[in-house]
Amino acid sequence: MAVETMERVAASISGDAERVSAAVDALFGQLLGDPGDGRDRLYAALRHAVIGGGKRLRPLLTVAASRLFGIAEDRAIRVGSAIEAIHVYSLIHDDLPCMDDDDLRRGKPTVHKQYGEAIAVLAGDSLHAMAFEIIADPRTHEDPFVRSDLAFELARASGPAGMAGGQMMDLAAESEALDLAAITRLQQLKTGALIEFAVEAAAIMGRVPPEARTPLRGYARNVGLAFQITDDLIDYSGNESAAGKRVRKDAGAGKATFVVLLGEERAGQQAALLVDQAIEHLADHGEEADLLRAIARFAIERDH
Amino acid sequence: MAVETMERVAASISGDAERVSAAVDALFGQLLGDPGDGRDRLYAALRHAVIGGGKRLRPLLTVAASRLFGIAEDRAIRVGSAIEAIHVYSLIHDDLPCMDDDDLRRGKPTVHKQYGEAIAVLAGDSLHAMAFEIIADPRTHEDPFVRSDLAFELARASGPAGMAGGQMMDLAAESEALDLAAITRLQQLKTGALIEFAVEAAAIMGRVPPEARTPLRGYARNVGLAFQITDDLIDYSGNESAAGKRVRKDAGAGKATFVVLLGEERAGQQAALLVDQAIEHLADHGEEADLLRAIARFAIERDH
Repeated sequence: MAVETMERVAASISGDAERVSAAVDALFGQLLGDPGDGRDRLYAALRHAVIGGGKRLRPLLTVAASRLFGIAEDRAIRVGSAIEAIHVYSLIHDDLPCMDDDDLRRGKPTVHKQYGEAIAVLAGDSLHAMAFEIIADPRTHEDPFVRSDLAFELARASGPAGMAGGQMMDLAAESEALDLAAITRLQQLKTGALIEFAVEAAAIMGRVPPEARTPLRGYARNVGLAFQITDDLIDYSGNESAAGKRVRKDAGAGKATFVVLLGEERAGQQAALLVDQAIEHLADHGEEADLLRAIARFAIERDH
Repeated sequence: MAVETMERVAASISGDAERVSAAVDALFGQLLGDPGDGRDRLYAALRHAVIGGGKRLRPLLTVAASRLFGIAEDRAIRVGSAIEAIHVYSLIHDDLPCMDDDDLRRGKPTVHKQYGEAIAVLAGDSLHAMAFEIIADPRTHEDPFVRSDLAFELARASGPAGMAGGQMMDLAAESEALDLAAITRLQQLKTGALIEFAVEAAAIMGRVPPEARTPLRGYARNVGLAFQITDDLIDYSGNESAAGKRVRKDAGAGKATFVVLLGEERAGQQAALLVDQAIEHLADHGEEADLLRAIARFAIERDH
C-alpha cells in the first residue's frame, strides 16, 4: 500500500493510542513502586516488562469498544491494563529458554536476559495475578456482577481453554504439520481469545447480554486473525528493528504459518478480507465505532 | 510426642481430609478431561500435578472455617480447589530447573521431569488461570459481590504482595543472611498469605465484615507459621519417603530457616506455642470450630 495511506491510517489512531499507552503506563507505575525489601528486583523486572513498550492493542480495543456503550475511558483503561498484564506475562514466559528462547522483546532485552530465568518466571506469575487484582478491584467497576463476570471471562480467555491452550497447540505443532483449519484454531486460542475478551469486556461493562454480543465477537475474531496474519508477514519479510523482536524465527523453524500455507500474496489478501468483514460487523453503529474501524484497518496497514 | 497421640490427632481430621481430597480430585477430574487436540499433553500434565496428591491443607482449611458460618461444603470445596490450583501452580514453577530444580514432588516425578520444562511452565500458568475461573464461576457462589471479593483477595494473596513476592524474597535470601524477623516476613508472604486467604475466604462467603475477621486471621497466621516451622523440621530431620520430596535441601544449601536460627528444640517449642495461640483465637466458637482446632494440632503433630 502507498506510504501516505499507511500514514493516514496510523495517524487516525495515534492520538488515542498514545493517550491509552500513557494511561496504562501510569497505572502500572503506580502499582509497581519499589517495596523496599527483597522484592525490589522483581518489581524492577515488572516495570521493565510492562511499562513503556508494545502497541497496547488490547487496552486500545477495550477503550474503542467502550465507546459503543458510553463507558468512561478510565474504567476501560483499568480493564485494558488487566488484559495487557496477561498479554505481557505470556510474552515473558514465551521468551524463556525452554520456550522460544528469545533475547529481544519490544526493542529491549527480554526479562530473563536482563534479570535471570527465575525472576522471569516470577515476573510472569506476578503479572498474571495482578491482572485479576486489577479487574476485580471495586475501583474498576461499581457493579460486583460486572467485576466477577470480567474476572471469570478473563480467566477462561487466558487459561487452557484459551491462550495457554493455544500455546500448547503451538508447542505440539513443532512435531506435526498443521493445515489451515488447525492453524486458525491454534491462533484463535493463542491470541484470538484474549483479543476477543478485550472487546467483549466493554459489552460486559455495558451490561449487554451475551446473545447480543455476536457482532462484536465477530469483529474481534476477524481483527485478531488479521493481526496474526500481518505478524506472520512481518516475521516473513523480516525487519527486526521495526518488529522490535527476532524475526523469521517461525519461517526459520520450518513452522507452518498463514504465510507459509497461503503464500505472501494470498495471506495479504486474506487479511484484507478479514478487515472488511470486521468493519461489516459494525454496520449498526455510527461514528462511535470509528476507532474500532480504524484499529481494524491498522491491523494490516502496519510497517512490514 | 507419643505415637498414639499423633495417631489420635491424625484420626480426628482424617475422615474430613479424605472426603475433601476426594471432592477436590473429582472437581479437577471433571475440568480436565482430554480436549482431544494438540492440548492433550498439557491436560495430562495438569492431571498429573493436581489430582491425587498432597495434604490438601488449604481446601481443608476453607471447609473447616466454613463450618463457623454454616456455609455448604460443596461451595467451600470449590473455593478451596481454586486455592489448591494456585498452590499447585506455585509448586510446579518452584520445581523448575531455574528455580529449585527438584525431581520429586508428592512422591511422583515433578511435571518438568515427566513432561518437559515448556509444558511445566504452561501447566503452572493454566492452573493459575483455572483458579480464577473456578472462584469467579456463578456456581461457586450466587452473590456476585462474594465472587468478585474472592477473586480480588485471591489475586492479592498470590501476587507480588503475597506468594509470588515471598518467592522473590526467598530467591534474594540466597545472597544475604536473614534474621528471624525477615524469615517470618518472607514466610508470611510465601506461604502465609494463601493459607490466610483459605480461612478468610469462608468469612467472605459468610459476609463477615473485614473488621470482624481479626481472630480468624490470627488463627490462620499462627497455623501457617506452625506448618512452616514443622516443614523446616521435617526437611532438617530428613525422611524423604515420608516427605514425598527431596529433603535437607534448605539445610544443605546453608539457607537460614527457623530450625537453623532457633535450633531444633526451640523451633519445636515455638511451633507448639503458635498452635496454642491459634486455638486461643477460636475461643468464641463452640464445636463448630473443632475441625479448625484439630487442623492446628495436626500442623505440628505430623510425622517428622
